[in-house]
Amino acid sequence: MKEPTILLDHGSGGLASQELISEVFVKHLGNPVLNDMEDSAVLAAQSGRLAFTTDSYVVDPLFFPGGDIGCLAVHGTINDLAMRGARPICLSLGFILEEGFALAELTRIVSSISAATRACEVPIVTGDTKVVPRGKADKVFINTSGIGVIDETIELSAGKVRPGDTIIVSGSIGDHGITIMTRRAGLSLGGDLHSDTMPLHRLTAHVLAAVPGAVHAMRDPTRGGVATTLNEIAARAGATIVLEDELLPIRAEVRAACEILGLEPLYLANEGKCLAAVAGDQADAVVEAMRATTEGKEARIIGRVEAGSARVVINTPIGGSRIVTALHGEPLPRIC
Amino acid sequence: MKEPTILLDHGSGGLASQELISEVFVKHLGNPVLNDMEDSAVLAAQSGRLAFTTDSYVVDPLFFPGGDIGCLAVHGTINDLAMRGARPICLSLGFILEEGFALAELTRIVSSISAATRACEVPIVTGDTKVVPRGKADKVFINTSGIGVIDETIELSAGKVRPGDTIIVSGSIGDHGITIMTRRAGLSLGGDLHSDTMPLHRLTAHVLAAVPGAVHAMRDPTRGGVATTLNEIAARAGATIVLEDELLPIRAEVRAACEILGLEPLYLANEGKCLAAVAGDQADAVVEAMRATTEGKEARIIGRVEAGSARVVINTPIGGSRIVTALHGEPLPRIC
Repeated sequence: MKEPTILLDHGSGGLASQELISEVFVKHLGNPVLNDMEDSAVLAAQSGRLAFTTDSYVVDPLFFPGGDIGCLAVHGTINDLAMRGARPICLSLGFILEEGFALAELTRIVSSISAATRACEVPIVTGDTKVVPRGKADKVFINTSGIGVIDETIELSAGKVRPGDTIIVSGSIGDHGITIMTRRAGLSLGGDLHSDTMPLHRLTAHVLAAVPGAVHAMRDPTRGGVATTLNEIAARAGATIVLEDELLPIRAEVRAACEILGLEPLYLANEGKCLAAVAGDQADAVVEAMRATTEGKEARIIGRVEAGSARVVINTPIGGSRIVTALHGEPLPRIC
Repeated sequence: MKEPTILLDHGSGGLASQELISEVFVKHLGNPVLNDMEDSAVLAAQSGRLAFTTDSYVVDPLFFPGGDIGCLAVHGTINDLAMRGARPICLSLGFILEEGFALAELTRIVSSISAATRACEVPIVTGDTKVVPRGKADKVFINTSGIGVIDETIELSAGKVRPGDTIIVSGSIGDHGITIMTRRAGLSLGGDLHSDTMPLHRLTAHVLAAVPGAVHAMRDPTRGGVATTLNEIAARAGATIVLEDELLPIRAEVRAACEILGLEPLYLANEGKCLAAVAGDQADAVVEAMRATTEGKEARIIGRVEAGSARVVINTPIGGSRIVTALHGEPLPRIC
């Protein structure tokens, strides 16, 4: 018997589309708002400013140690909301499917999305599915957009970062990027390489409540890694960010894999970490608050903001220093 | 000199990504919220329920008579908000680009998005761009998600449709679907076939204000066409929708092309039309209100809702009648 696959019909808007929606999407993701099945979801009125974000996910491979494209699409968009200090309230879910994609794999991805949304307590409230002919896409691409609500007292922006601020990272760096790259290269390097994909909205909510006003900006260093994200913050702040190489939390397996492949961990994507620029005199309190959360147990200070030109400098253990530019060249396609 | 194209680097999150963002996206779509360039957009607090919707656009060809994938992506998502009676306030924009796609074509699409958002007065406030290797996508796919605000008195849902309601369409049917299909088939059938892609939020706002409470549900009959959309409404309402064949507004060119290709106009996609189920005694007032708008000049009554099983029936001019099912089989891939 042939394995059931996605047919062009599943994207027609007709009966086959409705079957796919009810037997896969609603079955796994159903909730009162999604089940409404109207042209758009209707949500209760919200008090507070709204945060709105979108991300498409094209990661290859679809399944990798530590996660898959499904949970990644949930976490990534939730994290973009969390970085502005927003409380995520709902997500949308758009699929672009390739004709011939195995229905079993789609179901596995939707189950992963379902588990992630339940764990995050953020529902999918509206969705869309398109199907393109064989060879016109690669299996499955996912878009998630999300809405969050920002409490009145919270105002995070790279524009608020200034000399005297301390730079904190919520945990180890490079895990997601190196995992995808070694998998794609078919390398088995030993050690426990796995993606760090993880939602950060509970960490950010806890920190913002525990140390009010301390955090000036937060960013999750995804594509382009810590180096590129800090360069963006330095550019917005018009100041120099100085990192201490020996303070960077890099797992031994990640460091070893980077050495073998000739990669710089600072440019590797992360999918469950945040960088925070915080008032210098409250940095220890912020680290402590992060460490009180499951997601931030390994949080630590990695650098500071100084007056100077907009750039990122790293001090090496042997007493030298070098400039760390934003990523250019060396594309790492389909990392998320 | 080689024509500039999209490189994998443009999706890396590094310098090339930033250049593409500033030189194409921000240049054409810039506004204070988008220019913020943080992980998510921050919007003012809104009073009223929120509408939220998402749609991916994979239409082939990218450019067609009457529009292109860019304006289609703006109009389609605005229309999904409008169908719930929402006032659209902002859109997100996610691109999946194929390596090697001509930068000039991307710029043409972004210009079209820019023109559409300005005409609609609905800004793009957040975005994302991914690039996949050559052969892993077909040129460009676009996701737009959108947020709208619904006034307190408005409550539209197919669940409110009941026997005695009148079915109204805002204009001619089948224009978008037949245009895409004939273009893709390389047919030149003569006559002025062009897509009806058009935003409907002004039409819906005018009708809802002019005849308060009259409209029970609205839907835009995109994929699957009028037949499929009315079947969905009939299913939700648990009632029979009866159409009069001779009342269906179908342009002569569309009717001729359908005859040549053996297609049923009721199954063809529309991208600038809405169906409304309205209280029978206010149907004429709703038609009049629609006709007072640019978008609804050709609005007319096409049928009614009757007690009976959930189905759609069409009365033919010679006195017979037939059941019109939802679309099944006959996939029309990449129509939007």
